[in-house]
Formats: sequence, structure tokens, C-alpha cells
Amino acid sequence: MSEDRPHAPRPAVTLLSGGLDSTTTLAIARRDGFDCYALTIDYGQRHRVELEASRAVATRLGARDHAIVSLDLRRFGGSALTADVAVPKGRDPATMIDIPVTYVPARNTIFLALALAWAETLGGEDIFIGVNALDSSGYPDCRPEYINAFERLANLGTKAGTEGASRFTIHTPLIALSKAQIVRRAVELDIDLSLTWSCYDPRPDGRPCGGCDSCLLREKGFREAGVSDPLVRPRS
Amino acid sequence: MSEDRPHAPRPAVTLLSGGLDSTTTLAIARRDGFDCYALTIDYGQRHRVELEASRAVATRLGARDHAIVSLDLRRFGGSALTADVAVPKGRDPATMIDIPVTYVPARNTIFLALALAWAETLGGEDIFIGVNALDSSGYPDCRPEYINAFERLANLGTKAGTEGASRFTIHTPLIALSKAQIVRRAVELDIDLSLTWSCYDPRPDGRPCGGCDSCLLREKGFREAGVSDPLVRPRS
Repeated sequence: MSEDRPHAPRPAVTLLSGGLDSTTTLAIARRDGFDCYALTIDYGQRHRVELEASRAVATRLGARDHAIVSLDLRRFGGSALTADVAVPKGRDPATMIDIPVTYVPARNTIFLALALAWAETLGGEDIFIGVNALDSSGYPDCRPEYINAFERLANLGTKAGTEGASRFTIHTPLIALSKAQIVRRAVELDIDLSLTWSCYDPRPDGRPCGGCDSCLLREKGFREAGVSDPLVRPRS
Repeated sequence: MSEDRPHAPRPAVTLLSGGLDSTTTLAIARRDGFDCYALTIDYGQRHRVELEASRAVATRLGARDHAIVSLDLRRFGGSALTADVAVPKGRDPATMIDIPVTYVPARNTIFLALALAWAETLGGEDIFIGVNALDSSGYPDCRPEYINAFERLANLGTKAGTEGASRFTIHTPLIALSKAQIVRRAVELDIDLSLTWSCYDPRPDGRPCGGCDSCLLREKGFREAGVSDPLVRPRS
């Protein structure tokens, strides 16, 4: 391919929850010149406000298309995010090693499978997911060895991969970053972080609870990055 | 575990389309003593009659539970089964090597991911899928190397697999059988094959088209097994 020919942007499916990590991931994919197809799954999560956040983010960051696919995982249950189980509060981020009750069985496998289906349909070979293995809740489906296994599966289980038309790549630009590094990256990319949503268990007044793993990891990231979170009102 | 203690049946999630292969697979799982949780995906397939078939089969074969999960893959399109593309007719089963337009991108990856989510929630470690690599339409996600890759992924990407609580197994009892062998197995298991449905493109009068890959493979199987198909009316 000639280097001076302005080539058409490559399509990339980007999983987007509307949180800090997936929003930053979408911004990175856009910065890298991909034509982004944002994919959000409405799986019956209790923090449904993140669906609204994903819409605002996809529009603001210039996704080519944004699909919100309904898939009601409440039929299976098994997680504090989809069943009537309390979301744990006040865990210490330094000790979030045990997999918590907010783990949703096989969630990233389901999400990546759907992203793969869309990518193959689009004739693309790039999938972005904002998993993070460092400042995470210990979810097994956020680790590099898991992502590598999915990439292998994608190339074995698709027409495009099998016929050699595509070589699927799962991009995980945040996988080795700390939350503070992610916040700094988001600021560098000029993301309006007031659009994002992280809390698993919103308060009745619509504000973040401040105590769930996701709130605590976000708070830690902003604090260590020296950035103020636009979602958190200053204490009066 | 003491051998003389009658142990509780183990739960197994069994993917069930209502076709010949998945029905035979469910019967094998039941015969092997599993407590079966049948899982059917309503993905917007044009042959919606198979959803009714799956209900009849799950009931008749004594599944403990049967979930029909809605997931509209028409949002992505890309297949003759989900988009407005003609289903090819009259292909020779001996030459069904090229992957046809009825291929649904990443379908088995999506289905297995959902089965995995349910299995983990149930505390089970067994998943049954009626894939068949021999008399198939050449789909890449029906091959043993693909199934092995998924099994590896399942154990890396789940809480139960990671913590060693479960060792997930993807059972594919039909993978190396011919269609004729599958028909014979179904007859041995005393399955009422009039309950099953295979056709991708039902006629307006509700009968199988007789010309799609799935009809032709079924016809070949029954013929070679020397069994008459209860779905096919004798020519008058």
C-alpha cells in the first residue's frame, strides 16, 4: 500500500459502557484514526444511567455508529449488578483481589463475542475494550492471558479469520495502566469527563454512591492524578 | 466421593435450537444423567418456527429449565439467516466446503458465551453443544480446534474457572458423526423427530423448503440411515 495515499479509516468496534475506562478507550481509538462503531450492551444492569452516559459519549467523541443491544442477563442472575444482591461498599482498593459479587459471569466473553460479530459483519478486524488489570476489581476476564485467548478464538471461529481475510486484534490500550494514568490520559485527550459514569449503585438523587468498588477506584484515580472529578460536588 | 452414594445429578447447560442435532445432544446429556438447562437464543432468525420446536423438545425430553434469551443479531446483519439475503438452495452436500451466506458471524461464540454465563451461575461446569464438523455447512465455529479454544477461554475468563472451583467442559457428542449416524443415534434414544425443525427457510404453508443446506443435510442423513423423516410427507 502506497504510503502517501490517504487510506480510508479502518472500522473498529469499541465496547462502550459510558464509564471512564471505555470512554478513554474510544478516544484513543479515534485518535489512532479508527472509524469507531461503539457497542453498548443493555444487560439489565442496575446502573442503567450508564446507558445514557454511553449515548452522550458516543455522540461527543464522534463514533460513526452506536448500537445499544439488549440482552437480559437477569434471566441467569448470579451478580450483584443483575440480581437482587447488595453492592458491597467501602472496600479498600489496595485489597480488591478477591473477585467480588459485582462480577457478572462471563460478561466480557459475551461482550467480546458480540463485538466480534459486528466487526466481522463490517469487514473490520479491530476491537477495542477498556479492560484494566491493575486498578481493577480482580475480574478474571480483564487479564492479558484471557484477552489473548479470546483473540485466538476469534480467528478460529469466524469466516473472516479462517479464510485469512481478517486477522482480528483485540486492542486493550488501558490494560497495564493505573487508574491515575487513565485519568491523565483522558485529560490529555481532552475528554469531557462529566459525560462519563462509573457508579454501580446510583443514589436515589441520581448521584454516584461514592462507596462501591467502581466509585472508590475512580476516586483513587482522580486523586492520584491530581484532577478533580466533575461528577463529585465539592463538600460544602 | 463414595461410589455407593447416589449423587445429585450435575447441572448442564445444553444449547438447543430445536433441530435434529441439538435435540439429539440434549437426549444424550439426559441419558448421561445430567440435569439439563436448555438454552435457546431468539436472535431474529428467519426460521422462527425453530423456537416453537425448541419448546416442545425441552418439555418432552425433560429439561429442568428452558431459557429463550432474546438477542437481536439483526442489528449487525451479515447473514442470510438474519438479513434480507436469499437462502441458497440445491447445494450438493458433498461440496458444502465453502462457508455459505447462512453463516452467522460469531454465532457459536455468542451462544457458548451465554451458556457459560448460565453454567457458572448454576455452579455447573458442563456445557453441551450439537456442533458437527463432518456433515456440516463448513462453518468454522463447529470444528474441534475452535471448541478447544473456547474451553480454554472459559476456564481463563470466569470466576469459577480461575479459582479452581470449576473446570468447564464443552461437550460435543456429535462432532465426529455423520448425519446418518446422528439420525441413528436419535432413533436409538427414542426421540420423537417430528418435534424437531431443521429448515432455514420455511415455506408459506409451514413446511420445510427441502432445498436449503439444512434440509438437504437432513434428507441425506435420514436417507443414508434408512429412516423416514416424519416431517416430510410422502409424495403422492
